[in-house]
Order: sequence, then structure tokens, then C-alpha cells
Amino acid sequence: MDREDLWRALGLDLEAHGALLEALGPLYQEVFLSQENRPEGMGYFDSVVADIHGARVAELLQIRESGRPVVGTFCVFVPKEVIWALGGACVGLCAGVEVATEKVEELLPRNLCPLIKAFFGFKLARLCPYMEVCDFLVGETTCDGKKKAYEIFEAYKPLYVMQVPQRKDEASFTLWLEEIRRFVNHLEEVLGKALSPQKLREAIELINRKRKALARLNRLRFNDPPPISGRDALLIHQLAFFDDPERFSSRLEALCDELEERVKAGEGVCPPGTPRIILSGCPMAIPNWKVTHLVETSGAVVVGEESCVGSRYVGELVAVSETSRKGLLRALAERYFKIDCAIFTPNPERRRHLASMVAQSGAQGVIHYALKFCDPYTVESYLVERESPVPVLRLETDYSPEDREQLRTRIEAFLEMLS
Amino acid sequence: MDREDLWRALGLDLEAHGALLEALGPLYQEVFLSQENRPEGMGYFDSVVADIHGARVAELLQIRESGRPVVGTFCVFVPKEVIWALGGACVGLCAGVEVATEKVEELLPRNLCPLIKAFFGFKLARLCPYMEVCDFLVGETTCDGKKKAYEIFEAYKPLYVMQVPQRKDEASFTLWLEEIRRFVNHLEEVLGKALSPQKLREAIELINRKRKALARLNRLRFNDPPPISGRDALLIHQLAFFDDPERFSSRLEALCDELEERVKAGEGVCPPGTPRIILSGCPMAIPNWKVTHLVETSGAVVVGEESCVGSRYVGELVAVSETSRKGLLRALAERYFKIDCAIFTPNPERRRHLASMVAQSGAQGVIHYALKFCDPYTVESYLVERESPVPVLRLETDYSPEDREQLRTRIEAFLEMLS
Repeated sequence: MDREDLWRALGLDLEAHGALLEALGPLYQEVFLSQENRPEGMGYFDSVVADIHGARVAELLQIRESGRPVVGTFCVFVPKEVIWALGGACVGLCAGVEVATEKVEELLPRNLCPLIKAFFGFKLARLCPYMEVCDFLVGETTCDGKKKAYEIFEAYKPLYVMQVPQRKDEASFTLWLEEIRRFVNHLEEVLGKALSPQKLREAIELINRKRKALARLNRLRFNDPPPISGRDALLIHQLAFFDDPERFSSRLEALCDELEERVKAGEGVCPPGTPRIILSGCPMAIPNWKVTHLVETSGAVVVGEESCVGSRYVGELVAVSETSRKGLLRALAERYFKIDCAIFTPNPERRRHLASMVAQSGAQGVIHYALKFCDPYTVESYLVERESPVPVLRLETDYSPEDREQLRTRIEAFLEMLS
Repeated sequence: MDREDLWRALGLDLEAHGALLEALGPLYQEVFLSQENRPEGMGYFDSVVADIHGARVAELLQIRESGRPVVGTFCVFVPKEVIWALGGACVGLCAGVEVATEKVEELLPRNLCPLIKAFFGFKLARLCPYMEVCDFLVGETTCDGKKKAYEIFEAYKPLYVMQVPQRKDEASFTLWLEEIRRFVNHLEEVLGKALSPQKLREAIELINRKRKALARLNRLRFNDPPPISGRDALLIHQLAFFDDPERFSSRLEALCDELEERVKAGEGVCPPGTPRIILSGCPMAIPNWKVTHLVETSGAVVVGEESCVGSRYVGELVAVSETSRKGLLRALAERYFKIDCAIFTPNPERRRHLASMVAQSGAQGVIHYALKFCDPYTVESYLVERESPVPVLRLETDYSPEDREQLRTRIEAFLEMLS
């Protein structure tokens, strides 16, 4: 299908959408294509971005037209295995750039997380084909901002909301398990079909394979020099939310094979001994590459993301030792309940996890990345800094390019201090 | 006990504390004492404010010295009946004015709710005798800001945190009931004594009496002209968190008797037909009287507060038909679960409640009051406006006096529009 026809069929604002895609090209050239020593395997991921609103959207439309549901999500807490098991497809949504600000601020307060304002903007301005191709969305009560914004958003798109508890004790786990059961029941009712334990096992294996490949990528980055840049690794994590899981996994596995060869040959994207940084904090949605790009053009390399677009998504695998519906749902609930998101109180697991990433990667510093007005992460950053084994630079920013030079100055001073 | 000795014994910063109290005098004069036609019964409440950090603090210190616990709370979700039943005393904390901003911003992000920054400031600057006289505090996971800030605050004061669910369904109620049981078990363990169902019934009746008296006050305000100003009514709701419940109730009942006489005589604080406003939104802690004062010096009268310092605190009574521990705890859980706070999703109960207040009071307009950066209320205000039966003015402000004239202009324009 011709791209314009596809976007027209989905009701996009063709003119504004064209301008948006046009702006992506030079940015991608600057941030990604200008890099030296890139692994060859990045070619596939470059081609995905080059057609970011095209090929995959067309596939999803086909899935939908064949009567299978396409479901959009905003958060790593949604147990996507269930959606795949029921024959559906799960996809992330556009939320990485500020659009249609004026329209958004008729609905939402100005002082709100840029990610939330972004997904409203993409919907109101009809710029996200992933949003439009979805049958419905699944939200969650992770943060106050999203929780309350969904109540407004449901006037624009069918939306199902899962409650995520706020503490990690038995009563909270019971609630969470019940939420997963409720979600499955809801899907079964909407789709008019029952979840087959066998299909669920297959879906768990499908997603486990993706997480395993991402974990392997992340371990390879612990080498000095890292065989891949932080920018490329971030991009791969971002695309993990959009691409077909099977194709994505197989391309990523091939890339990891290549990276292993590079490691053996002592090849990397920068000289050995280049200062190593872990990014920690809020998710970075496409095309939010600002901070990683600044770090890597200031003489350092990012060797890990302690983030939902990063290690918090990769996390642990779902156990597939179970065969019953009940057992598999419990295994899913257990896996998702381990996510060390800042919405939990207390959340010492996140600091331990970060410390272990620092130790494994040999990072000399942590940059804590918080989206403006994000209370869970901006408040928790104080504890992250206090308990970090290495120095921490705390940044708070939004999607605007305006603070770029100011951020560069702070990042350079931080790197200077580390050396 | 001499006041200075009392404050010294509690470790306050005497000089800064003196300056704080000194600033309160002229403000109280301007906002309260300059009003005309005040009910005589306000004399008692004036005297409480005149010694706001004195007599009641001394009483609480005595309670503590007699071996009974004094417990501080920040939120209407904490089931205070349990604390009273165990022989303790429950008290609100200072959070209505910005103090020690620089120290606070070493711990907390700048872009955070002023109420949270205020209670940190009062602790860090040693200015709140209620905080100091407490044995420990009870927090709750209502909003992201408080939930995460408690993790930092516990380094400064012993703190127990209750999880409040985010939705009103059966699984959430089960979690909440479990949280109340856990809280009771914790208190019993800490205090080394068991909760007696008989004492719990008495405590429920003690607090029910206070809520009944406040509800009676609020109903009396529905008369035109109202027999009491919004400022005085707000102050009474604020003092409900501090004063001895029995004394408070009996003084408030006497005031209500007086107000009933006034209503019979057609007497009020303003001419009949004065434009009537409901305030809706975030809590206003002492000395946060800014918006009510602006409204009532702009030719209107506030006839109700749909707020935690207002009708959301008063709410329903706890049923005392039960006699067993289990039954009474369930009755408590049921009562608190009905609170229509913006942290719940969805929260149509709050809009219905507001509409009913508007109908009962004959208000011509609603002013939605949100503290800056408060996501639950700033986001929900869109739905409040959309569904309100009367016009809504949405304000977002903090504790600074700087926006006073700007707010006055907006309030005057709103009142103009109503007439």
C-alpha cells in the first residue's frame, strides 16, 4: 500500500504528518548516521526508522483487517503476552516529541509530564499512525499524571485501565494478580474467545526471546570498548515496542553475533578507556535521543539504560514451567511485579539494580534523567544520588531542544569531574 | 508551662518561630477580625488561633508524657478512630506556608506541590511544634509526591505509611481493609496493647460527633444569607485537625445553635442575594486563606468547600451498629473508602458530590482551587469544569502572596460574569 494512502486511510493530518517525518531525517542523520564504527547489523534498524510510520503500520493494519486486535500501550506493566496469546498484536505509541501544545493545554494542565502531553498531542493532531491503527489502548495507574489523564483521553480512544499497586507486599501482589485476571477476562469477553494455555506459553516464549536478545545486547555493552554506541542501543530498545517481535529478535540476535565478534577482535565504537555512563530514570520515546546524543558527543559513551526503555523493560523472563492457565497467569504476575519502577514505595530494588549495572559495566558515573514534573522520578532521584556507588548528575528536562546547550555544559562539567 | 519553655523543650528554632507567629497576627486581623457581623461563637476559635502553637501543643505534650502516643497525619484517609481508641491522640501538621525553601530544595525537586515542600520546611527549620510533639507520623500513598517524599522524610521522623488503592472496586476494597488491619496490628505491636472493640466504638462516636457538628455547620451555610462567612467556616474545618475533638465538638455545637438563631432571625454575614461560591479542590492548611479571602472581599460569599479541609473530611459517619473488632474495622474501611479524592480513577463520585453541594447551597459558581503541580487535582479539574452545573473558574496557585492581585482580577471577572 502506498504510504500516503495508508496514512489517509488512518485519518492522519497528511500535511502536518509530512512535516513531522521530514524533520526526523536530518535529526537521524545527525544523531545516528554520522557515527563512526557502527556495526553492520544496525542497517536493519536504520531501515525500520527510515520507514517508521510505514511498513510496520501497514502490517498492523493487515492484522486488524484480518479480525485480530491491535492494542496500544504506554507502559512496561501491561502484560503483552496475553494480547499476543489471544491472537492480537501489541504496539507502543508516539510520545517522544511535543506536538499540538495549544490543543493539549485545553485539556491538560501546562505543568504536566511532557510524555503525557505528547501522546495527547499526537492524538489531537492526528499524527500517530500507531495510535490510529489500534482497536483500543491499555493504560495503567502507574503515575498520577497518566492515571488521571486517561479519564480525559478515553473520550478520544477506547481505553482499558489496569490498576498497578504501589507497594511490594503480599496484599499488593494479590491485587496485581487479580488485575491480570480481570484484564484477561476483559480481553476474552471483548474478543469472544478463550485464552489457551498453550498459546499463552507460546506468547511468553515469543516475548522472552525478545527480552533475552535485549539482555544479551546489554551484557555485550559491558565490554570496554563497547561494541555498540549508547545511541544505537537506545534506538533498539525503542524499536522493541514497535516491531514484530519475531523479526526483531532474529535481527537483534544476528547483531549480537556481530557484536560478539567485535568484542573478540577488541573492536569498539570508541577507544578503550572512554568514560562510561549509565543513564537512569524516565523512559525516552522516539525521537527523544537528546541526552544520550549529548553524552556521546561530549567524549563519553553510554553503556546502559536503567529505564523502562532499557533494563527495566528487559528485566526478568516469565517462567514457563507452568502449564495451567492459573499457573501461567501467576508466573506473568510475578514477573511484572518485580519491575522496580519509581511508583513503588519503598523502592530499594531500583537502587540495588542500578548499583549492579554500575558494577557490571564499570561505569564511572550515572546521569539521572527525569522528565519535568515527573514526581516519582524527580523525587526518587535524591535517593538514587545518595546511594549511588559513583557520582550522579541529576537532569530534569522536557522535549524542547532549547535547553540543549545548557545540558551540554552540565554534562561536560560532570564528565570533567569524573576524569 | 511558659510558651517559650514549651517550644524550647520541643527543640524549635525560637527566633525563626517567633517571627513566624508574629507574621500571623496582622494576617489574622486582616482576614478574620476585620469581618463584620461575625457570630459570637467564633470567639473560641479566635482564641485557639491566638495561641495556635501553645495551649493545644502543651496538652499534646502532656498526653505524650503520660505515656500515650501522639500521632501526626497529613491526610483524611488515616483512620484516626483507631489511634484514639488505643489511647493516643491524633493531630494535623503545619503545611500551609512556604518556609526554609532552600533547605527543602536540597531534598526535593523545585517543581513539587507546595504542601509537601511546606511540611518538609517546617521540619527542617524546626518550626512546627505539632510535628515535634508527635511520637510518629502516619503517611499514605495518596499522591505520587507525598508517596515518594515520605521515603526521604523518614530520615527526619519515624513514619508509618498506609497504601491507599486507586480504584473503587472489590479487589481495591479488599486491599484497603487489609491495610487498616495491618495498621491496627502495627499500632498494637508498637504500643504493646490490644485494641478493645468497646474503646473503638467510643472513638468512632467521638469522631462521628465532630463530623456531625461540621456537617451541621455546612448545612447552615446553605441558607441565604449564610449565618457565617466562608473564612470562618474554613478556619473551623482547619482547626478540626488540631483541637481536642470533644471540646471542639461542643464549641462547634454551641456555635451552630447560635447560627440557627441567626438563620431564624434572617441574620447573616452579608446581604441576602450575595453571589454564592463553592470552593472545590485541594486542601487549604492554616494559614492558607488566600482564595477565600479574595472571594469574600470581592463581593461574594463562600458557602462550601468540596475539599479535604471541608466536605471531604466531614463525609459520612462510621456505622457503629457493629460490636466485633472485625465488624468495626470493616465499618471503618467502608467509611474511608467512600472518600471521593482525585487520586481515584475514575472518580465520578466527586463530581456528583460537587453538583449536589451546588444544588443544596444555591451557589452560582464553583472556584476550582488546585495547588501548583498537583496532578490529581489539576488534571481532574478539566472534568469538574466540563460536568459542573454552574460556571467554573479554575485556579492553580501556591502559597506565595505574589499572585494575589492576579488572582483577584480573575476572581472579580468571574463574579462579574455570574451576575
